[in-house]
Amino acid sequence: MRYELYYWGEIQGRGEFVRLALEEAGADYRDVAREPGGTDKMMRLMERGSGTPSFAPPFLKAGKLMIGQTANILLYLGRRHDLAPKTEAGELWTHQLQLTISDFLVEIHDTHHPIGSGLYYEDQKKESKRRAAEFLESRAPKFLAYFDAVVQANRAGKGKHLVGARLSHADLSLFQIVEGLRYAFPKAMRRMEKRSPHAVSVHDAVAARPKIAAYLASPRRIPFNTMGIFRHYPELDSE
Amino acid sequence: MRYELYYWGEIQGRGEFVRLALEEAGADYRDVAREPGGTDKMMRLMERGSGTPSFAPPFLKAGKLMIGQTANILLYLGRRHDLAPKTEAGELWTHQLQLTISDFLVEIHDTHHPIGSGLYYEDQKKESKRRAAEFLESRAPKFLAYFDAVVQANRAGKGKHLVGARLSHADLSLFQIVEGLRYAFPKAMRRMEKRSPHAVSVHDAVAARPKIAAYLASPRRIPFNTMGIFRHYPELDSE
Repeated sequence: MRYELYYWGEIQGRGEFVRLALEEAGADYRDVAREPGGTDKMMRLMERGSGTPSFAPPFLKAGKLMIGQTANILLYLGRRHDLAPKTEAGELWTHQLQLTISDFLVEIHDTHHPIGSGLYYEDQKKESKRRAAEFLESRAPKFLAYFDAVVQANRAGKGKHLVGARLSHADLSLFQIVEGLRYAFPKAMRRMEKRSPHAVSVHDAVAARPKIAAYLASPRRIPFNTMGIFRHYPELDSE
Repeated sequence: MRYELYYWGEIQGRGEFVRLALEEAGADYRDVAREPGGTDKMMRLMERGSGTPSFAPPFLKAGKLMIGQTANILLYLGRRHDLAPKTEAGELWTHQLQLTISDFLVEIHDTHHPIGSGLYYEDQKKESKRRAAEFLESRAPKFLAYFDAVVQANRAGKGKHLVGARLSHADLSLFQIVEGLRYAFPKAMRRMEKRSPHAVSVHDAVAARPKIAAYLASPRRIPFNTMGIFRHYPELDSE
């Protein structure tokens, strides 16, 4: 089966969490909105619906299924491609971690859009400075410490995994969070990484996986930029 | 099995989405943090962990499982108590809707906390006014129109259900969203409800269910207040 991923073609954004899972799984997929006419096709699908229309991208066509919401897509892919434990308890725990990563991601996004996603950053710059400072001072360290503690408590993972002894989609997503924070807030991240070394070691283990390394070096990996969720605005970063 | 729900005892908050599912299911449960010493017990569980520690409440003890993240808890309860279709496609679709409700809820919360959840409303009142205006102008109508269209497209639900011909946890949660918005933004909601009558009809069908009606009339239902996610600050509401 060839998957069809629908997500904005110019940014990593939420779609990147799905791309990483598809790449690690070695799955056959089209990144539709990066093809000519693909964005129009995506917009038409969102407007006309599909039986299971999405409020926003990403969504994934998998045979007859059309699945929306990043964490929901990863729940599905986790089952199909061995990216989560097979037991209900293990699947729920991995999904719980993925949903906590989703929460973290919203707060990362809102550092540059605290007033509204419909306004430009330039129109909410003052509020962004306040929100980013609060985020870097209290929220980001709290989230990172949480994931750090989960890795540390999971002895079977040997510092490489959040869940059990094997890779899961939660590891892939934590990799992306660390990678994105390094791009967006390099100064603050240097400080924060020191306090959450186990979260960073999961990142490093993911980066070293052959399929992920090949993907990151390929043109399929869209570079970070100031249109995505992780944005580097020097005025929002701090030591 | 007697469930143990862990959530702040003074507010509806995210825990209310779980309470509504437990009540509709007629499940036996303890609302632990509303019992003497319960909040301390909850905090200890969060600090010491449990194998599957939560970043934040709510979390649910279900036999040997300890499940965190509202939507994840509802995924689990949906299976156990027939609050979601049994097919994988139906379960994923219901969960997708629930995750979109979670996204909506974050934006509702951030109308009074646009800068940070660690600061008081009074310290971010100016920013709240801007964010709430943007929310009521563009975001809330967009979310409501989405759910309205889903209800309308689902002919089997006859205006009473988001998914198929039967009640799901997504219906219960949409009820709570409408109820909360009416409390928080009565003026704006009068205008918005007119444009999303099908979303409102799901609300009404849920309110009329005997177990839900009995719950809402009981002391187990904590009244809305200005400590929760839905807060009524007249200065944030608008026609």
